[in-house]
Amino acid sequence: MTRAYNFSPGPCGLPDSVMQRAQAEFLEFAETQTSVMEISHRGKDFLKVYNNAVRLLREIMDISDDYAVLFLSGGATGQSAAIPLNLTASSDDTTAYIISGHWSQRSAVEGKKYCHTHIAADNTGNGHTILPSEWDVPENAAYLHYADNETVHGVEFSTRPDSFVPLVADMSSNIASRRINVSDYGLIYAGAQKNLGPTGVTVVIVRKELIRARSDVPMIWDYKNQIPAESMLNTPPTFQIYMVSLVLEWVKNEGGIDEMEKRCVEKAKLLYSCIDAGNFYTAPAQIGNRSRTSIPFFLADDVLTGDFVAGAEKEGMIGLKGHALLGGCRACMYNSMSVAGAQQLVEYMREFERKHG
Amino acid sequence: MTRAYNFSPGPCGLPDSVMQRAQAEFLEFAETQTSVMEISHRGKDFLKVYNNAVRLLREIMDISDDYAVLFLSGGATGQSAAIPLNLTASSDDTTAYIISGHWSQRSAVEGKKYCHTHIAADNTGNGHTILPSEWDVPENAAYLHYADNETVHGVEFSTRPDSFVPLVADMSSNIASRRINVSDYGLIYAGAQKNLGPTGVTVVIVRKELIRARSDVPMIWDYKNQIPAESMLNTPPTFQIYMVSLVLEWVKNEGGIDEMEKRCVEKAKLLYSCIDAGNFYTAPAQIGNRSRTSIPFFLADDVLTGDFVAGAEKEGMIGLKGHALLGGCRACMYNSMSVAGAQQLVEYMREFERKHG
Repeated sequence: MTRAYNFSPGPCGLPDSVMQRAQAEFLEFAETQTSVMEISHRGKDFLKVYNNAVRLLREIMDISDDYAVLFLSGGATGQSAAIPLNLTASSDDTTAYIISGHWSQRSAVEGKKYCHTHIAADNTGNGHTILPSEWDVPENAAYLHYADNETVHGVEFSTRPDSFVPLVADMSSNIASRRINVSDYGLIYAGAQKNLGPTGVTVVIVRKELIRARSDVPMIWDYKNQIPAESMLNTPPTFQIYMVSLVLEWVKNEGGIDEMEKRCVEKAKLLYSCIDAGNFYTAPAQIGNRSRTSIPFFLADDVLTGDFVAGAEKEGMIGLKGHALLGGCRACMYNSMSVAGAQQLVEYMREFERKHG
Repeated sequence: MTRAYNFSPGPCGLPDSVMQRAQAEFLEFAETQTSVMEISHRGKDFLKVYNNAVRLLREIMDISDDYAVLFLSGGATGQSAAIPLNLTASSDDTTAYIISGHWSQRSAVEGKKYCHTHIAADNTGNGHTILPSEWDVPENAAYLHYADNETVHGVEFSTRPDSFVPLVADMSSNIASRRINVSDYGLIYAGAQKNLGPTGVTVVIVRKELIRARSDVPMIWDYKNQIPAESMLNTPPTFQIYMVSLVLEWVKNEGGIDEMEKRCVEKAKLLYSCIDAGNFYTAPAQIGNRSRTSIPFFLADDVLTGDFVAGAEKEGMIGLKGHALLGGCRACMYNSMSVAGAQQLVEYMREFERKHG
C-alpha cells in the first residue's frame, strides 16, 4: 500500500512512522494488556504518556516554567471563548483583535460574547491578502489577539506583531514550524490537527501570571484549576494526547524546530516558484505576507480546477481542493509533509500546465 | 496476545472486533489512500462515517425527528455548562438538579455558573447510597437534571424520575444499555468513553423545540447552529466519531439494545450474587438502587485490597481499583464487557475469598 501525499488543511497527514507505530501498538500498548485508548487517564501508564507530551513540547519549543502547558478539548474554536474567559476579570474588560483573515475574524466574533473587543486592525478591505502593518491597541486591553497564520487566506506574519499588552497567538497551523521566543507571548494556542497530531485536542501555552479567576469559565477550560489537575479536571482525549506525543517525538528525532523550519521554507519556495513562473497559476497573498504552510492558489482558467484536483488524486496527492470561501486550490504543507511531497506536487503542476497551458 | 478484561471506569475496554477492525484500516481507510484520522471532515468519505454514526444511534435508540443528534467536544463535563447555556434564555432563568452522587453534584455546581439552580433533591446525607425518591421542582424550572447512573457511588435509577418539566439525563455510563423511550426526555447526553467509544467525543440527543438562543453559549456547543452544521461548526473529533460508528455497528450486529440489556442484567447479577453470598465483600449501594454497570465494592479487610487488585491484574483483569473518593474496588462492566469477563471476575473473587476469608 502507498499512502498518499496529503495536502488537506486539517485533519491532515501525519508522519508515516508515527502512524505505523500507532498501528503496531493499537491493540496492546506497552505492557498494559490493552490499548492506550482503553487505559485509565489516571493510571501510571497514561500519566507517562501525558508527561512525555508536555516534556517534549517544553523541550522542542523551549518553554520556561513561567508558562503552563495544557492539553484541552474543544479545538481552537473552543479557545476563542476560553481565552477571554480566562484572561479577563469580567465582561466589562477590554481586549483587542487584529483581523487578518477568516480565523482571526471568527476569534474576534467569539471573543465579543465575553468582553468588549476592540478591533485593532482589519484587512477585510484588501480581501485578507495583505497583512495589517499597524494596529491600534487600547491601553487597558487585557491582550492583543492575532492569528500567526491564516489557513484560508494564506497569509502569515513573518515576525510577531509588536505589542505593549500581552500577545495571544493562534498558531494552529504553524506551531513548531519555526523558532520563536515563547516569552514574547502571553498565550499561544493550537488545535493539534495540523502540526501536532489528530483533531480533538488543543495545546495551550499560557504565562501563568496572566490568568484571572473569572467565575463563568467552563470547568473544562478553567486554566487556573486545570494546571494543578494536569489537564484532567475532566476526562482528557487520551488517544489524541498519545498521538501528539508520538508526533513530538518524531519532530525531535528529525532535528527539532530548526529542521522543521528549514523544510518548511524549502517546500514553500518550491511551490511559490512554480506558481510565480508563469500566468497559469496565481497565489492571492501579497509577497512578503505569504504563508509557508497553507497556500491557496488558482488556475487562470477555473474550469480546469476540477480536473487538476482529480488528476492529482489519481497520482496520490489528496486534499488539494480550495476552501469553500475562496474556491480554487490549496496546498497545506504542515510539518509532516516531506520535501519530496512538495516536489511531486510541483512536477504535477508543471506537467498539468504543459498539457493545458 | 491476549487482551485483558478491562473493568476501568472510562476510558474503558472496547469490543475486540472493533479494535481489530480499526487497527486493520488504521493506515488506509476505505479507498482514501490515507487514515480516517487524516481525511478532511468536510470530504465525502468522512461525511459517510458521520452520517452512519448518527443513523445507527437513531436506529438503535429509536430517536424521532423531533430530536437532533450531535457529536460534540468537551465531554459530559463540557455539557454541564453547555446545557444551561442552551436550554435557558438568560442567567435569570431557573433550573433544577437532583443530587444522587459525585457526577450529578458536579453538574449542579457547573450549572450554577450560568443560571439559578434549584436543588430538587440531595442524598448526600446517606453517602449517596440510596437514591432520592422525591424531588421538589420549581414550576418555572427550564429543566430537571439528573444522572441516570452514578459511576463513583454505584447507584442507578431503575426508572426515570417523573417530571413535569423537561428531563435532562446524564447517561454517560449507561446509554444504550437498556430500552428507554427517548421522547420521555428533553435531552440525553453521554461522554462516549463508557458505552459508545473512546474519550474525546460527547453525544447529545436534544428535543429541538427546547433550544433557546442564548448569546453567551460558546460556538462549539451552540446546538442551534451546530444542528444545521452537522456538528461541524468547528473541526470535530473525527477519529472518535469513527470509533463510535464502529461500536454502534457492533451493538446492532450483536442484537441491539435488548441484547445489551440482557447481558447487562446477567453480568450485574453474577457480581452482586458473589458479593452478597457472604461477608467478605460488600457493596455500599442499597439493593434496588444498585448500578448494573459500575459497581463499587469493598473487602471486609481493606488491607487485602491491594493484593486483590494486583492479583486480578496478573490474571488478565485490569482497572479494578476503586475511585479515589471511596477507595476499595470497582468493577465497571459496560456494553463491551462480555458475560465471560464477569464470570472470570467472579471466579477470581471466590478463589480470593477461599484463600483469605
